[in-house]
Amino acid sequence: MVKKRQILVIGNNDNGCTPESEKLAYDVGSEVAKSNSVLITGGLGGVMRAACRGAQESGGTTVGIIPQDDSSHANEFCDIVIPSGMGLTRDFLNALSADGVIVIGGGSGTLSEICAAYMYKKPIVALKNSGGIASKYADGYLDHRKNVKIVGVETPQQAIKYILEQINT
Amino acid sequence: MVKKRQILVIGNNDNGCTPESEKLAYDVGSEVAKSNSVLITGGLGGVMRAACRGAQESGGTTVGIIPQDDSSHANEFCDIVIPSGMGLTRDFLNALSADGVIVIGGGSGTLSEICAAYMYKKPIVALKNSGGIASKYADGYLDHRKNVKIVGVETPQQAIKYILEQINT
Amino acid sequence: MVKKRQILVIGNNDNGCTPESEKLAYDVGSEVAKSNSVLITGGLGGVMRAACRGAQESGGTTVGIIPQDDSSHANEFCDIVIPSGMGLTRDFLNALSADGVIVIGGGSGTLSEICAAYMYKKPIVALKNSGGIASKYADGYLDHRKNVKIVGVETPQQAIKYILEQINT
Amino acid sequence: MVKKRQILVIGNNDNGCTPESEKLAYDVGSEVAKSNSVLITGGLGGVMRAACRGAQESGGTTVGIIPQDDSSHANEFCDIVIPSGMGLTRDFLNALSADGVIVIGGGSGTLSEICAAYMYKKPIVALKNSGGIASKYADGYLDHRKNVKIVGVETPQQAIKYILEQINT
Repeated sequence: MVKKRQILVIGNNDNGCTPESEKLAYDVGSEVAKSNSVLITGGLGGVMRAACRGAQESGGTTVGIIPQDDSSHANEFCDIVIPSGMGLTRDFLNALSADGVIVIGGGSGTLSEICAAYMYKKPIVALKNSGGIASKYADGYLDHRKNVKIVGVETPQQAIKYILEQINT
Repeated sequence: MVKKRQILVIGNNDNGCTPESEKLAYDVGSEVAKSNSVLITGGLGGVMRAACRGAQESGGTTVGIIPQDDSSHANEFCDIVIPSGMGLTRDFLNALSADGVIVIGGGSGTLSEICAAYMYKKPIVALKNSGGIASKYADGYLDHRKNVKIVGVETPQQAIKYILEQINT
Repeated sequence: MVKKRQILVIGNNDNGCTPESEKLAYDVGSEVAKSNSVLITGGLGGVMRAACRGAQESGGTTVGIIPQDDSSHANEFCDIVIPSGMGLTRDFLNALSADGVIVIGGGSGTLSEICAAYMYKKPIVALKNSGGIASKYADGYLDHRKNVKIVGVETPQQAIKYILEQINT
Repeated sequence: MVKKRQILVIGNNDNGCTPESEKLAYDVGSEVAKSNSVLITGGLGGVMRAACRGAQESGGTTVGIIPQDDSSHANEFCDIVIPSGMGLTRDFLNALSADGVIVIGGGSGTLSEICAAYMYKKPIVALKNSGGIASKYADGYLDHRKNVKIVGVETPQQAIKYILEQINT
């Protein structure tokens, strides 16, 4: 056997997360589960929690890699918790654990995860109408190296379709 | 819903791992799966690989937290891989991810994981006839603080029974 | 006694580093040393190496926090080397070690360090004519939270002056 | 130029540190400084603080790599602080930053640093009359691999002499 596909979903924590982003995150989580992939998130609130809930309610498996050293800080929809004890440095662990990344809205933490994923050349897709970092960086590159394009899409279904194509290539 | 129990199994990598330790690790992994817990390991060879195989073949879920930054280094019985990119420093991630720890044989890497688990006061049980670190440290404490006793047992069944009792307390 | 001021200088590694950026980095390193601050860098080539050289040649102390687990990978102008063994995840260590950050050009690695510094609310200044990330992000914020402004300046002297003002406040 | 020698001194934090250990740590720190080496410690209290004080009062340079993400937690005798933000996982950073390690007393945290240093094959010397981990592990190996012997000595002068011989080999 080989490991399952692992898809990271990133975006705002509770503060700054809109109901629209939560709805998108829920649907993205659901699509991840339906594709038989494992959902990876930062394990906290907002987009992370909504994505985990969506995945669990579609029968998927969810992993939360959290900043704290105690799993009680994770949201209640994580099947498996990695309490990194590394603070926000765990953003890099999230990116390293991803075969592909889906971005919904987001702020500076989301951007740091995109930077890490970009440096390690992971496929990245952004829901371009979700505001924040996703809208700002969709359809561009982080720098002159053009490691990977942050591809902009409009729906959760398009996001998962793109990521699966990239992973399976 | 809440997260599943997560049990870490530690011991030698390919070099230094005896057939007896592999057999014990396979049985421990199987017991972890049968208890409906998630198996956490360092994701490489020897005891880690045998435990993952035992868990998968009993229908369990396996997580490998590896030193490298690329999941291709994990053994083929990991469902989920966390490629930490942190080298041996990942020993602390393993311990932090554990609700309880089972020790089979082992050397200095195993000891570093015991230190981490001990500092974070995780239940620890050692198969005392498995040699190496497990035999040397069974039924003792790492230091004068007596955070947690490393309890010595003789069989995989006793090991999992002890850990489940500790976690559920 | 109290610890010395620690100023992080970030920008391109050997690939992508222009002679103009190296000249700026050398001068910034020199200014850091003259201000009696410790220079922190990622310890590798390009901007990091030039800044270390500038600081050492003005009598300063230089620290390189490198991705590798062996100090031999650091540039030859580091007095002290922290071989993190964490790969690019060390970008967060750099930011955490900074009382203030000076940005010269740079790509995605530089941006990840800015993200980390921004999340931990460190003063950040960018040499706005140095191209790359410095020019793109000068005089703006990373996200809607407006934690800290990335202040754009034109010369190494202005950069150090701004950072010292912020640290001493 | 090349980097300076970096010597790590490890032992108990405030709790568990005896006046005798503090005296030894002060003298070891002083010897490190007189040998023109940089002192690395975990940056907190007890042995760490006393060693830093000894080094500073003999004109040396001191680095503290601390668990917290904020340098204010370091003892007041650190010239340079690396606030790792990684909790106790920073024990591995300490070991990786060492060209050689001197052990004074200590508990499970000290043992985890010895494990890390042993795995990376750093020279290790223990003050064998200082109690705790130093006394227990002096003149032995951590495991069957016999990577490096933990050499037992009686005085700070013997400790530094041994480490310098090993580093300069």
